[in-house]
Amino acid sequence: MNQDQEMEKAVLSFDDLKTDDKGLIPVVVQDYQNGQVLMVAYMNRQAFEITMKEERMTYYSRSRQELWRKGDTSGHVQYVKSIDVDCDADTLLAKVEQVGAACHTGHRSCFYRRLRG
Amino acid sequence: MNQDQEMEKAVLSFDDLKTDDKGLIPVVVQDYQNGQVLMVAYMNRQAFEITMKEERMTYYSRSRQELWRKGDTSGHVQYVKSIDVDCDADTLLAKVEQVGAACHTGHRSCFYRRLRG
Repeated sequence: MNQDQEMEKAVLSFDDLKTDDKGLIPVVVQDYQNGQVLMVAYMNRQAFEITMKEERMTYYSRSRQELWRKGDTSGHVQYVKSIDVDCDADTLLAKVEQVGAACHTGHRSCFYRRLRG
Repeated sequence: MNQDQEMEKAVLSFDDLKTDDKGLIPVVVQDYQNGQVLMVAYMNRQAFEITMKEERMTYYSRSRQELWRKGDTSGHVQYVKSIDVDCDADTLLAKVEQVGAACHTGHRSCFYRRLRG
């Protein structure tokens, strides 16, 4: 996507990000090839650091209250292509190579239901 | 984007959505033409209902603690093209026609800083 050419490089650690009152930051996950938004999940410090180190998306599951290395159970791994941060440093955007389906329902994207449009 | 062809129609009201402990739901906002993720913001019930009625993106500003009809001050209006909901009904995805810049910094997207990739 040509908008990637305009990106500024930023060196930030987890401490530079603004987390919510549970220490989490939301992550928008986008297919790096076609731009489809696949899911939104949350990272805590450990999930962020594993993701940056292994270049495989790892989250904190709010429902299960545990670390969730995407694909360990399903095989539906997400390989990191890029990670961006927004102006307020309270949201991340990850572009990934998605193996199989991002959604546990089997849909490619969790956003498979249209309310309007 | 061709993935739009696979969408299921859903009829949901705000009561069918899962909000956080402040009554808010996050919204990923995407340029309907090129797929660029522009920003993430939050809606409360009133913001959701205005957005659905007027087809102009309206949010609840967590910092200012008030309704935020995008573009009223800046002119950078977002016209709704579609609104999707995810599998857990706790996140929305809006595809919009963005007038000008989505970000208050003047960048087209709030995600103009790259941490990785």
